Amino acid sequence: MSAYDVAKLAKVSQSTVSRVLNNYPYVKKTTRKRVHEAIKELGFSPNEIARSLANKKTNTIGLIVEDISSSFYSETAHIILREAQKYDYEVIIIDSETDEESFNKSMSTLLGKRVDGIIVASVRKDNKNIIDFFESGFPIISYNRRTYGSDNDKFVAVDNKKGAMQAMDYLFDLKHEKIAYISGPLVYSTFQERYEGYKEALWNKGFEYDDSIVYQDVLSYDKVFNFSLNLMRNVDAPTAFFASTDQMALAIMDAASRSGRHIPYDISIIGFDDIDIASNPYIGLSTVSQQKRKMAVMALEKLILQIKGEDQKEDSNRIIIDSKLITRKTTGINNITS
Amino acid sequence: MSAYDVAKLAKVSQSTVSRVLNNYPYVKKTTRKRVHEAIKELGFSPNEIARSLANKKTNTIGLIVEDISSSFYSETAHIILREAQKYDYEVIIIDSETDEESFNKSMSTLLGKRVDGIIVASVRKDNKNIIDFFESGFPIISYNRRTYGSDNDKFVAVDNKKGAMQAMDYLFDLKHEKIAYISGPLVYSTFQERYEGYKEALWNKGFEYDDSIVYQDVLSYDKVFNFSLNLMRNVDAPTAFFASTDQMALAIMDAASRSGRHIPYDISIIGFDDIDIASNPYIGLSTVSQQKRKMAVMALEKLILQIKGEDQKEDSNRIIIDSKLITRKTTGINNITS
Repeated sequence: MSAYDVAKLAKVSQSTVSRVLNNYPYVKKTTRKRVHEAIKELGFSPNEIARSLANKKTNTIGLIVEDISSSFYSETAHIILREAQKYDYEVIIIDSETDEESFNKSMSTLLGKRVDGIIVASVRKDNKNIIDFFESGFPIISYNRRTYGSDNDKFVAVDNKKGAMQAMDYLFDLKHEKIAYISGPLVYSTFQERYEGYKEALWNKGFEYDDSIVYQDVLSYDKVFNFSLNLMRNVDAPTAFFASTDQMALAIMDAASRSGRHIPYDISIIGFDDIDIASNPYIGLSTVSQQKRKMAVMALEKLILQIKGEDQKEDSNRIIIDSKLITRKTTGINNITS
Repeated sequence: MSAYDVAKLAKVSQSTVSRVLNNYPYVKKTTRKRVHEAIKELGFSPNEIARSLANKKTNTIGLIVEDISSSFYSETAHIILREAQKYDYEVIIIDSETDEESFNKSMSTLLGKRVDGIIVASVRKDNKNIIDFFESGFPIISYNRRTYGSDNDKFVAVDNKKGAMQAMDYLFDLKHEKIAYISGPLVYSTFQERYEGYKEALWNKGFEYDDSIVYQDVLSYDKVFNFSLNLMRNVDAPTAFFASTDQMALAIMDAASRSGRHIPYDISIIGFDDIDIASNPYIGLSTVSQQKRKMAVMALEKLILQIKGEDQKEDSNRIIIDSKLITRKTTGINNITS
């Protein structure tokens, strides 16, 4: 019970001893010092204590998502949960907003539950707190959305920019020139990179970027529905819509139906993600696949390697997966004579 | 630190002291005895200890679902998670099979995480373990699926039998007589009661129950798709299909499309649940609503009352919500001349 003795002497909890020895951030300097002094006084080596704590693994990992009712998150969460059982890990999920305060609260709740590591499905690109965790060595990885500005970040993400360019090039091949774009908030790497892909694809073709046919706001069904319906009412409406998520593509399909347009004869629509419903024959949504199973499984496997201390350094924790264009029945040749 | 002293003297953990004082099941008799003796020896009253522990609430509740990628669970989970934040509760979700062993493992994981109470979205109707918890006084409630065989069970469920009868009566009104039924496993109260509703509706009309047009197995998309497609290939195929979940209704729609039938002119399809996608204009699925928001919010509120010790006894913890028939575009008058 050496960790217990250290905790008692340093007048801190065993979790704090663990936090100090695992170099967690957010431990007061004075606390850190007290723990190290206690270890010294008791004649233990820090490694010895760390080893005694290492056996205290809870075999539980945390998963932070933004909105568990959103298909991409619920589908990847399910993959992670069931895959984790094969490794004998339990997963606890927290559904939270992504602002810094909510993120900190979620992290603190999960650490309080003594998880062995954390997977973050949704993080803002400028989140500093998670970078501190990346650098602390505490097992943590993000998937889908990533942060910028650290060489120590760990993530599994699709090549979002290339994916967006694939969607655009496909629409160009179908003779579309006026293509509306529905973007989510650029505080997320996914939307930032897809937006860059949209712009670069236009640039490569020599087309001008037109602010009036680009939506860039919170991805609410009603807002996107109204934005799309308004555009469709114009005489020279876009002939194609590219949505940065499949769920928003459904809102555009709804607007097309409301405005009396027939998909894909009057209008083409393409999404991003390839959520399960996209492949339902009644929807048949053309989209860019994130390869969600591969992404989710890889994030979990990389986390477990970190927990076991078996992860390799270098770039092996920064994984970019290929995007895949999937054409179904919502995209077709442009029939509108201009 | 009286609970600490009791734990030390009885040579058990503080969690065990808590478990004993809260009358949790699954504490060994000898352990229970040791804790009570320690309390006596130290001159405390059990209430005093209980009070000192009561302040140790974690403001965390557990939620056990069967499959978080399934829309009904992900949508109700999201409602519970966000509603809980208003009450300053965190929620941890466990995704698990519903057999007794998996259920026990999930409960034990959540208790180990020191949750204040547990919401169970999916439980088999004959689960004895949860009944022990209902009777122990530990805050716990189920929604959607319930158990039978205890007067102390606590649940929020829709009137499944009545809902199924509403769907059937509506199909009868549309002149359908041969109605196929897709049931899930009868180990769940939801499927048991919906199945009874299907049979009773037939009986009331004087129609015979026909085994060959009833599916009763695990609800896999492929299995239900194949079962439906096979039925549709018969000369005297059913003119209507009633699916006990919306997700299975989507599989039937898929089969109808594959067999060249037009919905609702050649075939009518109705589901159960009213998941979000059902109301998408491209699906427009007729269904029976479980009033999922009401159900999820009530389950949470009732749990919090239990945690605070403010729940009333009697039948106020056994809540049955009205089902609501929602007619959209997948159901129509029977045009097949027989």
